[in-house]
Amino acid sequence: MEIDYSGIKVIGFDADDTLWVNETYFRDAEHEFARLLSGYETENKIDQELFKMEMNNLDIYGYGIKGFMLSMIESAIDLSNGRIDNATLGKILNLGKSMITHPVELLDGVEEVLHELSEKYRLIVLTKGDLLDQERKLEKSGLTGYFHHVEVLSDKKEVNYKNLLEHLEIPVEEFLMIGNSLKSDVLPIINIGAHAIHVPFHTTWAHELVKDEDDNGGYHTIDSLKEVLELL
Amino acid sequence: MEIDYSGIKVIGFDADDTLWVNETYFRDAEHEFARLLSGYETENKIDQELFKMEMNNLDIYGYGIKGFMLSMIESAIDLSNGRIDNATLGKILNLGKSMITHPVELLDGVEEVLHELSEKYRLIVLTKGDLLDQERKLEKSGLTGYFHHVEVLSDKKEVNYKNLLEHLEIPVEEFLMIGNSLKSDVLPIINIGAHAIHVPFHTTWAHELVKDEDDNGGYHTIDSLKEVLELL
Repeated sequence: MEIDYSGIKVIGFDADDTLWVNETYFRDAEHEFARLLSGYETENKIDQELFKMEMNNLDIYGYGIKGFMLSMIESAIDLSNGRIDNATLGKILNLGKSMITHPVELLDGVEEVLHELSEKYRLIVLTKGDLLDQERKLEKSGLTGYFHHVEVLSDKKEVNYKNLLEHLEIPVEEFLMIGNSLKSDVLPIINIGAHAIHVPFHTTWAHELVKDEDDNGGYHTIDSLKEVLELL
Repeated sequence: MEIDYSGIKVIGFDADDTLWVNETYFRDAEHEFARLLSGYETENKIDQELFKMEMNNLDIYGYGIKGFMLSMIESAIDLSNGRIDNATLGKILNLGKSMITHPVELLDGVEEVLHELSEKYRLIVLTKGDLLDQERKLEKSGLTGYFHHVEVLSDKKEVNYKNLLEHLEIPVEEFLMIGNSLKSDVLPIINIGAHAIHVPFHTTWAHELVKDEDDNGGYHTIDSLKEVLELL
């Protein structure tokens, strides 16, 4: 598929699971949560109920670890029929805290790619989730210097991107977004007339899953961030 | 005290307890929390322990209702020596959720002041806390149309303000900040060489309390937002 990237001046990067590992820690935490509640239900049922709880609470809590912690606590009470003990709830709180303070692990090739692209393009970070968490991760990543701007959005829908590009005075045709989520990083970007490159991460949260349109949608899908250097 | 506001072009407004009521709901929630735990400790002791817990967790959770909820849960476990029942924990979760979904109550004169100032100045909102909460409150407030820009900061220290003014290309001498917190809205602003007006709210969170320097610090303190119109 031929896509002309020659007009691109600004590249937006998603952060979680594009620049550094994130979803893996949620999967690990869910697994540990199921272990803590294994006296009450099967892991499969616990996973399902926790996910339902997160979806029910998403409008209220938004994305991020704190909302996930609160949903774990509420699920633990529900799944145990109100019999979960305080010690286990304390462990759930600690599980969440250790997610927040986890060291940042960069994905393969990130520094090399940012270093090379930063010489030709203006790079920005566009992430969603908890403001403090995301700022802290960027700080710990050591990547701050590559970016002209960092924006933490409450959501990544077309309207959020449109408003942001307008505010930053970036014409849509000069903007390329790179990220792991078709739903959040690719499809809304294509829909507003900008460019996107999809770099799937091996693990995707169920909420972010959409049907992959197999490169017919006007964007490239690559296996590793490093392939961006060949496309541009 | 004579302060020359003639060079001001951009006015930043704090949001919580400057444009709308906020701290009152936290005080109400603390009171209800103490009532729920009244079988274990006195209200005074419960208040103190909850505040300590919030301060211990502030680096991890940051500002906002979700962190407050998690600290309430952790405090309830501690204060009850691990004997708090699930039903009470469920009530604590509901208490937090009702704070998040509470309607927005504008403070006296806000619309009139914004309406008049928006004709002469560029107005922006500078708030800290949870991104989703703050966006939602602004939306519900009906005030969005008065503001050119909304920025939710993870903290309001000198460095946060400096970076933001630089990013928005606002010279410090053209910037006036208006807010209820001396610590967050006034002193750091004065220290970077911009202007500030202090509008105290009747209730201030202990964490935001600093010694008031009684108008010797180069800023005005007013009783009601409406007095801004007389100063400018």
